[in-house]
Amino acid sequence: MTVSKHRKIAKAATEVFIAKGYTTASVDEIAMQAGVSKQTVYKHFGNKERLFLAVSMAATDAITGELAAQLDASRTGTADFQSELSAFARTLARMVLTPEITALRRLVMNEVGRFPTLGRTWYAHGPGRVVTQLTPRLRELNDKGLLSIDDPERAAEDFNWLVLAAPQNKMLFGATRSFTDKEIDAIATHAVNLFIAAHRPTSGRRAGGRAVGT
Amino acid sequence: MTVSKHRKIAKAATEVFIAKGYTTASVDEIAMQAGVSKQTVYKHFGNKERLFLAVSMAATDAITGELAAQLDASRTGTADFQSELSAFARTLARMVLTPEITALRRLVMNEVGRFPTLGRTWYAHGPGRVVTQLTPRLRELNDKGLLSIDDPERAAEDFNWLVLAAPQNKMLFGATRSFTDKEIDAIATHAVNLFIAAHRPTSGRRAGGRAVGT
Repeated sequence: MTVSKHRKIAKAATEVFIAKGYTTASVDEIAMQAGVSKQTVYKHFGNKERLFLAVSMAATDAITGELAAQLDASRTGTADFQSELSAFARTLARMVLTPEITALRRLVMNEVGRFPTLGRTWYAHGPGRVVTQLTPRLRELNDKGLLSIDDPERAAEDFNWLVLAAPQNKMLFGATRSFTDKEIDAIATHAVNLFIAAHRPTSGRRAGGRAVGT
Repeated sequence: MTVSKHRKIAKAATEVFIAKGYTTASVDEIAMQAGVSKQTVYKHFGNKERLFLAVSMAATDAITGELAAQLDASRTGTADFQSELSAFARTLARMVLTPEITALRRLVMNEVGRFPTLGRTWYAHGPGRVVTQLTPRLRELNDKGLLSIDDPERAAEDFNWLVLAAPQNKMLFGATRSFTDKEIDAIATHAVNLFIAAHRPTSGRRAGGRAVGT
């Protein structure tokens, strides 16, 4: 019961925050849309600030949870590292480049002045965690001589933004509303090709870095 | 007189919009801060929407104006292409990664729903124009065999975000307020090294793509 109420409130809150903006959204309206009392919202989430934080974290954690599962599957699978990085990039692009995440990102960025914890938490649970997840895998690829990567943490950050930055900015400024599956595939392939080309081992090391799809 | 008034109003408007947000900012307050009458503001800029558009365009045009001047200077200068790209990246990073541009970006993104022209115009005058500026130069570098670039327009877009995306997101989410000159240099050098490594000509073409600073 409680879990289902919790989810209902979180879902209603996400919708109301996106439709109204953080400042204009009211706990009254969220409670009404979730079909619960205002007291129930407060009991579950504390206050509007903590409710927004919970909703934002649920969104980023769903993404990094999926990415973690994918990395685990790759580790035990037989796919080559290029397919593995492409699959990671596709999942990242597919889950981040959505109208809902774009709307939440906008809200979070807009509240950074009044509500600094939120921005830092979003960053840490979002791009920051993607970097933390990918870093050890890139270190392994370097150690095996498949890629040449001096600074795996910085390379993971580059990877994240090579996938996301161009299409995400198009969404944030309203030049594009969403991407088709085919476009998501093309975004991921382009980023992985560029990343692998930039980190191709120099001669004398094993040359395992041929670009995907070329 | 008129030019100086125009500038005064634009400066006051930038400050008031950043401090109050687009919706809360009033033409009254902007007029007061500029030391002119409300009628003068309307005479110069039409309405609040057009004033915000003018202020945003002035900000992006200042950046792309400086970048254009730099590309022109490089064309007649004797610097190698690596130094030229590094200088371009440094100017881009130095001018875009400021608290003022970050605050304006946030405002523009936040108004995309209510005021879609603004977002699209910012994109076209900002990242879009940087891509337009850099594309012919990258095509030349490919034609000369100095870099291997199949799609110069896409590569220009990659270049822009390789420089800006990681540090810009740190600013947007409040993880960093600003960058020192030394940090700006490091950001530019890292991006240019990665870009050149990714577009190093393959054997059989002139190998002019050694990374800067390595």
